[in-house]
Amino acid sequence: MKIVYLGPEKTFTEKAAKEFFPDLELTPLQPIRNVIMAVENEKADFAIIPIENFYNGEVRETLDVLTECNKAKIVQEKALPIVHCLGALTEHKKIEKIYSKDQALEQCSSYLYKKFPEAKTISTESTASAVERIKKENFLDSAVIASESAIIDWGLQVLDKNLVPNNKTRFVLVSNQKTEKTGKDKTFIAIHPQVDKAGILNSVLGFFSSFGINLECIISRPDKRKGYYFYIELDGHEKDKNVETALNSIKFFLDPENKFSDSIKILGSYPNTKWKD
Amino acid sequence: MKIVYLGPEKTFTEKAAKEFFPDLELTPLQPIRNVIMAVENEKADFAIIPIENFYNGEVRETLDVLTECNKAKIVQEKALPIVHCLGALTEHKKIEKIYSKDQALEQCSSYLYKKFPEAKTISTESTASAVERIKKENFLDSAVIASESAIIDWGLQVLDKNLVPNNKTRFVLVSNQKTEKTGKDKTFIAIHPQVDKAGILNSVLGFFSSFGINLECIISRPDKRKGYYFYIELDGHEKDKNVETALNSIKFFLDPENKFSDSIKILGSYPNTKWKD
Repeated sequence: MKIVYLGPEKTFTEKAAKEFFPDLELTPLQPIRNVIMAVENEKADFAIIPIENFYNGEVRETLDVLTECNKAKIVQEKALPIVHCLGALTEHKKIEKIYSKDQALEQCSSYLYKKFPEAKTISTESTASAVERIKKENFLDSAVIASESAIIDWGLQVLDKNLVPNNKTRFVLVSNQKTEKTGKDKTFIAIHPQVDKAGILNSVLGFFSSFGINLECIISRPDKRKGYYFYIELDGHEKDKNVETALNSIKFFLDPENKFSDSIKILGSYPNTKWKD
Repeated sequence: MKIVYLGPEKTFTEKAAKEFFPDLELTPLQPIRNVIMAVENEKADFAIIPIENFYNGEVRETLDVLTECNKAKIVQEKALPIVHCLGALTEHKKIEKIYSKDQALEQCSSYLYKKFPEAKTISTESTASAVERIKKENFLDSAVIASESAIIDWGLQVLDKNLVPNNKTRFVLVSNQKTEKTGKDKTFIAIHPQVDKAGILNSVLGFFSSFGINLECIISRPDKRKGYYFYIELDGHEKDKNVETALNSIKFFLDPENKFSDSIKILGSYPNTKWKD
């Protein structure tokens, strides 16, 4: 069995992958497209990728690539707490620059604005590479945002811990296998209206409301032409009768002559872990 | 008059800032929070920041920080075409790594998957710094995604042009000044329901539909507790009678006792440039 995850190694995605498969060999791939496509093209059985963070929001590349796939579907979700720390060389001077990965800098932007309002942020390939860089180049005017272990492993001083309260990332397991109903499921779908008319989103959401289906989240994305994709996560399994009927109704509403293949697409049904609680 | 924009220099944001203010001095700041807060705290008169890209979607940090502000509002929008090229050293060998800024790598992910399915992507601080790095470190197994001018300026070879068709970024001008109605406006709002109940989004959207207000885009974002923020861009100015009435109705619906300050917030009203056309 081949299992791939979004690399590089020693990231939170690797940690999530190890929680899904503690005893199996795991292969890092980059970028997200290659990880998902390995499953779609049957070169891997399972893929682990991030899909949403409390501070950064959804991982758009994950949603976009899943929408292009026909076989690779979300089959499980798992959330991990993300604890960021601030580190610097022990002999550091006034901190004028903060190095970290873009997403971590974004998650910590309120903290940085309060504590280091004048500091310039500089993005790096990963949080680990930020630590390596200020150590190797002996940057005395700089700090890093990274995990406590990365800061300590490189012999830096931990200046502050847990910079962002209640920070979580949700990861998903992707495979070509079908899931069964558990009674407590969620389903991610992508809707692509082929006609841009006023109130179309409201009409679509009306079907869910009529069938008593609660929505967990909704995201519109430009379709690179003049319209939008809508990504919706809803309560229920695609095989639940009310979900199935609502999706069929929306499909007919958006595309009565069945001319388009992507007017509605299911990205997966999977047990709801209530990850935000 | 002081004008700030999201740095570093020589980026598309600087280009947009120069189109807004061709003859004035412009000051780069980082990160996005510091740019917007300069206007909020009256240290700058205008700020220029990106808000949405055709491929990456909305810039969440921009929306999040504007939602925290009371004075800084969007007053204008402007879209620029983003043309990415592929470059490498003239004596390059087989391309095994692609360096660029995260957002550019994401925008080009379909292209890279088709042309360089085995290549590893490595993110850098900016597209310009990617070019500088492979030049200075003489990476023969690597290519960069950057503007044609950056590739040529550093003496690299342009391997391919315009990697992503119809790629545009929308920038906004932020200030403390109020805008007047033009008859062709849009308004960005943030809605934060204090109670998580099924169908609340559908009810909110129903008000817009009832008042004949078209929605341009909608994005839900975790509020870092158990709920969501909804960002909505709609047609009309906040002073248009139907928009004003719809927003008052939604405010009353979400918060009948007027207990919360952020149940609905206007991020700005500004002329609609039809940037997607």
